[in-house]
Amino acid sequence: MTPKKRILSGMRPTGRLHLGNLHGALKKWIQLQEQYDCYFFVADWHALTTDYATPGAIRKNTWDMVLDWLAAGLNPERCTVFIQSDVKEHAELYLLLAMITPLPWLERNPTYKEQQQQLTAKDLSTYGFLGYPVLQAADIIIYRAHGVPVGKDQLPHVELTREIARRFNHLYEKEIFPVPDALLTEVPVLPGTDGRKMSKSYDNCIYITEPEDTVRKKILQMMTDPARARRTDPGDPAKCPVFDYHKLYSTAEEMDRVSEGCRTAGIGCVDCKKILLEHIMAHLGPIRQRREAMEKEMDTVRQMVLDGTARAREEARKTMDLVRSAVGLGVENGI
Amino acid sequence: MTPKKRILSGMRPTGRLHLGNLHGALKKWIQLQEQYDCYFFVADWHALTTDYATPGAIRKNTWDMVLDWLAAGLNPERCTVFIQSDVKEHAELYLLLAMITPLPWLERNPTYKEQQQQLTAKDLSTYGFLGYPVLQAADIIIYRAHGVPVGKDQLPHVELTREIARRFNHLYEKEIFPVPDALLTEVPVLPGTDGRKMSKSYDNCIYITEPEDTVRKKILQMMTDPARARRTDPGDPAKCPVFDYHKLYSTAEEMDRVSEGCRTAGIGCVDCKKILLEHIMAHLGPIRQRREAMEKEMDTVRQMVLDGTARAREEARKTMDLVRSAVGLGVENGI
Ligand code: SF4
Ligand code: SF4
Repeated sequence: MTPKKRILSGMRPTGRLHLGNLHGALKKWIQLQEQYDCYFFVADWHALTTDYATPGAIRKNTWDMVLDWLAAGLNPERCTVFIQSDVKEHAELYLLLAMITPLPWLERNPTYKEQQQQLTAKDLSTYGFLGYPVLQAADIIIYRAHGVPVGKDQLPHVELTREIARRFNHLYEKEIFPVPDALLTEVPVLPGTDGRKMSKSYDNCIYITEPEDTVRKKILQMMTDPARARRTDPGDPAKCPVFDYHKLYSTAEEMDRVSEGCRTAGIGCVDCKKILLEHIMAHLGPIRQRREAMEKEMDTVRQMVLDGTARAREEARKTMDLVRSAVGLGVENGI
Repeated sequence: MTPKKRILSGMRPTGRLHLGNLHGALKKWIQLQEQYDCYFFVADWHALTTDYATPGAIRKNTWDMVLDWLAAGLNPERCTVFIQSDVKEHAELYLLLAMITPLPWLERNPTYKEQQQQLTAKDLSTYGFLGYPVLQAADIIIYRAHGVPVGKDQLPHVELTREIARRFNHLYEKEIFPVPDALLTEVPVLPGTDGRKMSKSYDNCIYITEPEDTVRKKILQMMTDPARARRTDPGDPAKCPVFDYHKLYSTAEEMDRVSEGCRTAGIGCVDCKKILLEHIMAHLGPIRQRREAMEKEMDTVRQMVLDGTARAREEARKTMDLVRSAVGLGVENGI
């Protein structure tokens, strides 16, 4: 039996997850844990690249996120869940990779300028923000991962990780790091309640473990095709965010019925949304219940994460032994 | 009794030390260990900022340098001698300080551009080279040092460390780090055998533990005032590198005699150098002997350094506990 390939992925601790997160990365993770040797981590050091001035929420956000991961179906018996900042070896590798990473590689990183322009409320011209792809590379290659699940927009980061891994192997003349592949993940379009991209900063999210009644309210108040100002106005599902949800949740038969009814004003938006609501409730109900149960077992959850962290650290240490001996540093390691 | 103030200083592992190193930093260190709680370290991670592509010599250079430190009089019973790369906490603090350090602070660092221009054979436009003052700040403040002995040219680095320490304390609203003072060290001018600054790269060094006969040869062949082409030509001690050595080694009476004799062609350069040679031999003899003795006791030396490293790590860990709780990261620390 060949050993399973190793996959690594992380999320910044943003707190409770919304439907966009669930149908994006998290669903993919839950699939991947069945086939691969998966390492999933809370990227709390990465959170500091943008939130260094206000780190107060990181701890609470960590647990809110981990609980949602587990509630949605991530299974610590099938994958390794850990906290980045508790595996100090990432910092050591970040330092070593910093030495070999050409500045122009970082300066030409497209998301560097982009994010600086978007997050104008924060001062992001810091050394750490410029270097977050170096930390990201360390996160990945310290587990000698074969693959990284990413959306299209993150492809340049994986490319940078690949370049850094190759450069290290080349400089120290050893194939220490497998060059990881991007596992391109198709992320469905999931608009928020106002029709824009679902995002905390827009306050348009449906959270995966929020109470039934607020989910209902949000869906019923959700934006629809503006052409349907009155019940009798026909609409176009292609212009309606609600229909994007139908694509994820409803049957083909239901989608046909809704489409037809919308275009002919045969059904009202409320009826249309009620069909959707039933599916969403059925989907989120068990997730919410698992979360509520786990909230009462926080010691167990914490221990699961500590166990995962210990497992991750063991792997990271094995790699760092190879790294230190390739670079030739470490008196304590007998080098 | 108030506790001793803490001093921190490091040297890159350049191998055997020369007289310039001895009369510069090392002599000062040997004095400081009597009054302060001193931490002296081999800055092997720093060596990677410039030598990442050729790290092969770092290990040998580490032991050559440490042996010279001890031979010259650094006493591990009076100070803590350690290896930077064996205290991983420096890397963790480097990462955290990276997050809060504005890029412009690093870009305006005068030695950054300077060294890039000087060391043109190496590609120094790396992320790590740009950030070495951040690592330096971590090295210093992780021991909550009160003072750093430096030459005038390094004052901007200490200033940067002070700014980073202040910024951290301010952002996290705790006085975690004492803002360290620069202990300005007057470094005597010590030219190499060709009259230029003594430096390995000029191949003009007298090493502190090299054999007597090569020291003699180097001194006897050392450049003198070019005006004294013949024995009968008068010279000017102010224009002669040999006289800079007399200032360090000879008595006032001898300096007068040499000065007078040089200006009047009353003594020859060989006589002048022989006076100096006697002093240098008397100074270096015991150092050379101590080094030879220690080379036979490498296990003891190694253990001394491991003990120092363990002591340093313990202090670094105490600080990192404070740091992690100020920033609010670290599930394993119960945060
Ligand atoms: S009927 Fe459904 S698809 Fe059509 S506009 Fe209303 S909510 Fe949107
Ligand atoms: S006599 Fe001494 S000081 Fe004068 S030029 Fe010769 S070596 Fe230099």
